[in-house]
Amino acid sequence: MTQSLAKNIHPITEHGANVLYQHGTLALLVPGLLEGTTTIGELLKHGDTGIGTGEGLDGELIILNGVAYKVGQSGVAEQVPDDFTMPFANSHRAAFQYQCERNDIGLEELNDRIVEANGRANTFFSVKVHGTFSFMKTRAVIKQQAPYPTLLEVADRQAIFLRHDVTGTMLGYFSPVMFHGAAVAGFHEHFLSDDHTFGGHVLDAVLGHGEIYSQVFDTLVTHLPVDDPGYRNHDFSQDNIAEAITSAEGDTRTD
Amino acid sequence: MTQSLAKNIHPITEHGANVLYQHGTLALLVPGLLEGTTTIGELLKHGDTGIGTGEGLDGELIILNGVAYKVGQSGVAEQVPDDFTMPFANSHRAAFQYQCERNDIGLEELNDRIVEANGRANTFFSVKVHGTFSFMKTRAVIKQQAPYPTLLEVADRQAIFLRHDVTGTMLGYFSPVMFHGAAVAGFHEHFLSDDHTFGGHVLDAVLGHGEIYSQVFDTLVTHLPVDDPGYRNHDFSQDNIAEAITSAEGDTRTD
Repeated sequence: MTQSLAKNIHPITEHGANVLYQHGTLALLVPGLLEGTTTIGELLKHGDTGIGTGEGLDGELIILNGVAYKVGQSGVAEQVPDDFTMPFANSHRAAFQYQCERNDIGLEELNDRIVEANGRANTFFSVKVHGTFSFMKTRAVIKQQAPYPTLLEVADRQAIFLRHDVTGTMLGYFSPVMFHGAAVAGFHEHFLSDDHTFGGHVLDAVLGHGEIYSQVFDTLVTHLPVDDPGYRNHDFSQDNIAEAITSAEGDTRTD
Repeated sequence: MTQSLAKNIHPITEHGANVLYQHGTLALLVPGLLEGTTTIGELLKHGDTGIGTGEGLDGELIILNGVAYKVGQSGVAEQVPDDFTMPFANSHRAAFQYQCERNDIGLEELNDRIVEANGRANTFFSVKVHGTFSFMKTRAVIKQQAPYPTLLEVADRQAIFLRHDVTGTMLGYFSPVMFHGAAVAGFHEHFLSDDHTFGGHVLDAVLGHGEIYSQVFDTLVTHLPVDDPGYRNHDFSQDNIAEAITSAEGDTRTD
């Protein structure tokens, strides 16, 4: 028995390419626990690639090749310093595997195909698409001030951006349905144009032509802000976490 | 701002005392994905203290001081070897802090007081109680064979044990409500008598006299059996995970 199981027993490498690091949980954004409780500098210790949001939902963050960019309400990307703080973020060490090239495919179909190709709807993985998007619709939340509003209230306070024929990188994470609440079930994707003039949280897109890469994780490291009084004292049992996240985060699988 | 936040930003130490390691998720037990996908040897790399269950729900495991014991349908504890496999287990490196002594207190009140004392219903922590229990009710599931039944079906196939005035260690973990599904929300506690003649999954207890210790984690490392075909191919969306876990695992907060 031990021998036949050996192939299925995957030794963990906590600092390796199979680890997705997450600070915070999406559940804490629902009631408006938006204080920054980690920094870009800390996040970069766990990876060179990632996404997140700043304190008070200050912009949509994307980390590529160890450099962090923020897209705020102007829609333009700017580099952020190591001491920039965040309530929620993901990072990992890039070791993407090339999947395929695709032409003229909408975001929903693209995401469905990536899950199918991986055969891994029950695992966390990252997806990276570099290419020219014939259509890209993003949003950036407008930075909120304390006392912070709830995630549903904030959903109305966002800037929406549209671009055609924009070349850049879409980076995101897929989380299995059983982790909804801790993460966003399904895909959560951010975009950055190659010229850094445009980006944000992806709401919809059509890929004109591009290359698709993915990276599967066997380990999720969840780091919680246990010393933050707002987090420690909040009663999450009254928040309708799953529904609020699905509604506010604009799940890209809209079927 | 950075300065005032510094106290709330807790550097992660992935191999340190603030990390709870988990192999699998409770959600995979619900539809009967009971194949062993990690070993005691692997689990012990991540801690010297823990709980779990064997392949096919073979017994209730407890790890104390780096030694793993299994309580099966006989109710007697036996040491298990490093190659013993499990579908689900937790471990951590013991660095418990002494909390208090307590006399004549029931399990539910004891658990409530521990949460109150910690003020940490939103964090993962371990609790260890050593003392003499005037009453201890445990269960051990009877080992199942493949094709495995669901968790609800298995709940009827268990042995129940009762002891009075038994001295030993109750070890368990508390998981925040937002992680229900990945873990069991609330407490999940196992017991081992000092003489190893008795133990199991704690259903109810009264502590006559004992000492209470706890250890708070800021990081949960979740390791998933991503190469196990049963796990990869299962459609969890049809399982009523949250309700099935609450029903079958005998949440010790029975209010």
